[in-house]
Amino acid sequence: MTESNAVASIPAGRPVQAQCRFDPALLLQAQGVQVAIFDVDGCLTDGRIYIGADGEGVKAFNTLDGQGIKLLASGGITPVVITGRDSPAVRRRCADLGVGRALFGVHDKLAAAAALLADMGASWQSLAVLGDDWPDLPLMTRCAFACAPVNAHVEVRSVAHHVTEARGGHGAAREFCDLLLMAAGRYAALLDGHLVTLDSAAT
Amino acid sequence: MTESNAVASIPAGRPVQAQCRFDPALLLQAQGVQVAIFDVDGCLTDGRIYIGADGEGVKAFNTLDGQGIKLLASGGITPVVITGRDSPAVRRRCADLGVGRALFGVHDKLAAAAALLADMGASWQSLAVLGDDWPDLPLMTRCAFACAPVNAHVEVRSVAHHVTEARGGHGAAREFCDLLLMAAGRYAALLDGHLVTLDSAAT
Amino acid sequence: MTESNAVASIPAGRPVQAQCRFDPALLLQAQGVQVAIFDVDGCLTDGRIYIGADGEGVKAFNTLDGQGIKLLASGGITPVVITGRDSPAVRRRCADLGVGRALFGVHDKLAAAAALLADMGASWQSLAVLGDDWPDLPLMTRCAFACAPVNAHVEVRSVAHHVTEARGGHGAAREFCDLLLMAAGRYAALLDGHLVTLDSAAT
Amino acid sequence: MTESNAVASIPAGRPVQAQCRFDPALLLQAQGVQVAIFDVDGCLTDGRIYIGADGEGVKAFNTLDGQGIKLLASGGITPVVITGRDSPAVRRRCADLGVGRALFGVHDKLAAAAALLADMGASWQSLAVLGDDWPDLPLMTRCAFACAPVNAHVEVRSVAHHVTEARGGHGAAREFCDLLLMAAGRYAALLDGHLVTLDSAAT
Repeated sequence: MTESNAVASIPAGRPVQAQCRFDPALLLQAQGVQVAIFDVDGCLTDGRIYIGADGEGVKAFNTLDGQGIKLLASGGITPVVITGRDSPAVRRRCADLGVGRALFGVHDKLAAAAALLADMGASWQSLAVLGDDWPDLPLMTRCAFACAPVNAHVEVRSVAHHVTEARGGHGAAREFCDLLLMAAGRYAALLDGHLVTLDSAAT
Repeated sequence: MTESNAVASIPAGRPVQAQCRFDPALLLQAQGVQVAIFDVDGCLTDGRIYIGADGEGVKAFNTLDGQGIKLLASGGITPVVITGRDSPAVRRRCADLGVGRALFGVHDKLAAAAALLADMGASWQSLAVLGDDWPDLPLMTRCAFACAPVNAHVEVRSVAHHVTEARGGHGAAREFCDLLLMAAGRYAALLDGHLVTLDSAAT
Repeated sequence: MTESNAVASIPAGRPVQAQCRFDPALLLQAQGVQVAIFDVDGCLTDGRIYIGADGEGVKAFNTLDGQGIKLLASGGITPVVITGRDSPAVRRRCADLGVGRALFGVHDKLAAAAALLADMGASWQSLAVLGDDWPDLPLMTRCAFACAPVNAHVEVRSVAHHVTEARGGHGAAREFCDLLLMAAGRYAALLDGHLVTLDSAAT
Repeated sequence: MTESNAVASIPAGRPVQAQCRFDPALLLQAQGVQVAIFDVDGCLTDGRIYIGADGEGVKAFNTLDGQGIKLLASGGITPVVITGRDSPAVRRRCADLGVGRALFGVHDKLAAAAALLADMGASWQSLAVLGDDWPDLPLMTRCAFACAPVNAHVEVRSVAHHVTEARGGHGAAREFCDLLLMAAGRYAALLDGHLVTLDSAAT
C-alpha cells in the first residue's frame, strides 16, 4: 500500500469544541496585548537551577510551554524573553522556539523593557508580562497585563492580574499564552488548524 | 547451603487478588485495540525538556511505564512511539524497551500513523493513542480509544475517552497499558505469571 | 577564642520527645525483622530513569533515605539492595551508604533472595521488603513484612502491610526504616544519640 | 529613539502593598537573629542527590531561595551554609550567592557552629537555623529560632518554631529569609527598593 492510499483511507475526525475558559473581565484586561515578556527561572522552568562544578549546565523547560510560545507568535503576539541570568541553555531554547527578541543577564529589567518597546515601536499598554520574583515587579506594575505562576513569590502574585493554575515549568507559560490568544480572539482558529495535520499547518 | 537448597526452601506466597479497576464502559470502548501509539514528551515524560548548550541531553522516563510497555507487547498489543521531537535519548529508550516501531521527528502525525497502520495491515478501529498536546489531536479524534495524561492540555483532555490519574512520566503510560490489557482480557494472566519469578516468566 | 572555649560555651539543648508514630499492629507485624531488601527504581528513587545517548547516566536518590539506611544498619538490621537494573549510579550509592550486600541486574528476585537469605543464615520470617512493581511481588508475598511507597503499582500496594505516606525518592525508604527501627525497639536510643553530635555518634 | 528617551517614557508603576504575613509570636521569636545557618540537602534542595558513576554531579537549587539569601545579607543578617556533604556544586552555588561563610563536609555540626559563632563574636541567641534531618537537631535545639521545611523528618519538624509551607528546593529557604527579614523590620524597605530597578537597587 502506498502512502497516498494510506492517507486516502484516513477517517474524518470527531468534532472538537474548544474548552479553554477564562473570566471575561480578565480577557478584557488582556485585550490589545501585542508583546509578551517571559521571565525564565520560575516561569519557563520550575525555578530549579541545576548547578555543577562548572556552574549552571542544563535547564528544564516544558514542551507545553514551547508549543504555547510558538502558537502565540503565529497568533500575532510577539514573545520576548528577558532574564536576569544567562546560560547557553536559555539561549539554545530561545533559538529552538524562534524567539528572536531575547535579552540575557539583564540587571535592570525596567530599562531593558523600555528600550525594547521603543525599538519595537510598542507601548506599555500593549505589554503583557509573566514573572515570578521581585526583579519582575517593576515590569509587572507598569504593563497592561501581569501574570504570575502559582509558585511565584507572594508579592508578585499579589500584583498579578492572573495567577496561573499551572506551575512554572509545568504549563504556566502555556496558560499565559492561551489567555492572551483567547483575549486576542485567535484561539479557536489556531485550534481548528491543528485538527488536520499537514506540515504547513502544524507547528 | 547450595542455591538449589535455597530455592527448595522458598515458602509459598500469599495469594494475590488483582485490584485493577476501570469503568466497564471504558473497557468496552478499548476492546479490539491491537496497536497503541505513545507520544513521548508529556506522556512518557512529565513534559520537561532538559536543555544544555548542545541542545537536549537526557530525558526522564519512568520504570513503571517501561514495565507497562513490555507487558503490553507480551499481551499481544503492539506499542508504537511517534514523536515530533527527536533525540538519542528517545531512540535509546525505545531500543531498551524493545519497541521496534518508532518514528522520530514527525511533523505530520496523521500521515505517519496512516502509513504505519497500512504497513501493519491494521485499521483505525484497532488503534489507541496516548497524547497530551495539540499535535496529537488529529490522531486522538480518529482512533478507537484516546487517552490523555492528567497534565495534558485542556483541549486534549476534552477529546480523550480516559484521562489518567497518574501524571505523564509518573505512571500515566502504565495506566494506559493496564487499561488496554484489562480491555483485552489479558491482565490477570500476566499478573499471575509474575507471582513466581523465573527468568522466562518475568520480563 | 579557641575551639575548646567555643565548645565549652555551647548551651544545653531543648529536650526532644520522639514523635514517630505507627499503628501498633503494624509494629507487631514488623517485629523480628533482621534483613531489609530495598528495590531501587520507584523505592529509593521516584521511578524516573534519566536516559541519554549512552543509556542511563545519573539517578536521583534522597538524603533522608540515605540517612535511614545508615540508621537501620546501626540499629542492627541489615540493609540489602536487589534491583533488576544495573547502573554505575546504583553501585556508587550503595558503596557510599556502606550497603555491602547489593545485587544488580537481577532477573529472578525470588531465587536471588533465597540464595542471599541462605548465605546469611536468615529466614523468610526475618525479611522485610520495600518494592513498587510486579517483579517485587514474589518477594513481597513471601516475606514477613511488605512495604510499598505510595507511588507503587496498585497490585503492589494491595499486598503490602504498609503503604508509605512519602513517595519513592522523597522519603519512602526512610519511613520504612523508621518503622522497622520502631518495631525493633531501637528508634528512641538512636534519636537520643543524635542530640549531641560527636564524630562517633553522628553518622 | 534613544535609550534615555525610552527611560523617560516609563510610566509610574501601580502601588504595591506588601502581602507577607507571619504570626506575630513567631516574629517575636525570630527578633534579634543576626546569623542564619542553612543546611543544604533537603533545605536548599528537595533532598535529591543526583549520582552518576563518578559520584554526585549536579545539585538542583532554586532561584527564589537564591534571591532570598541575597536579600537576607542586604538586610544585615549573615547567611551561613553548613553541610555534612561536600560537592563542587554547593561550593559553586555559595560563591555565586556571595555566601562567604560556608562549611562543607562537616561531621559535627555542633562543634562547627560553636567555632563559627565564636569567630564571628555572635551568640547562640542570635542564631537561626534551617534544617531537615537528625544531624541538624543539635543546632536546632540550641539556637534562638529553628525552622524546618515541610519535607523535613518528623522529629525535626517537631522541634522547629516554624515549618515552612514551601518545600525544600521550592522556596522553603526564601520563606525562612522572608520571616527573618520581617522579624528584623527590614522587609518593607527591601521590597520598596525593588519597585524601581536601577543596577544599584536590584540585586
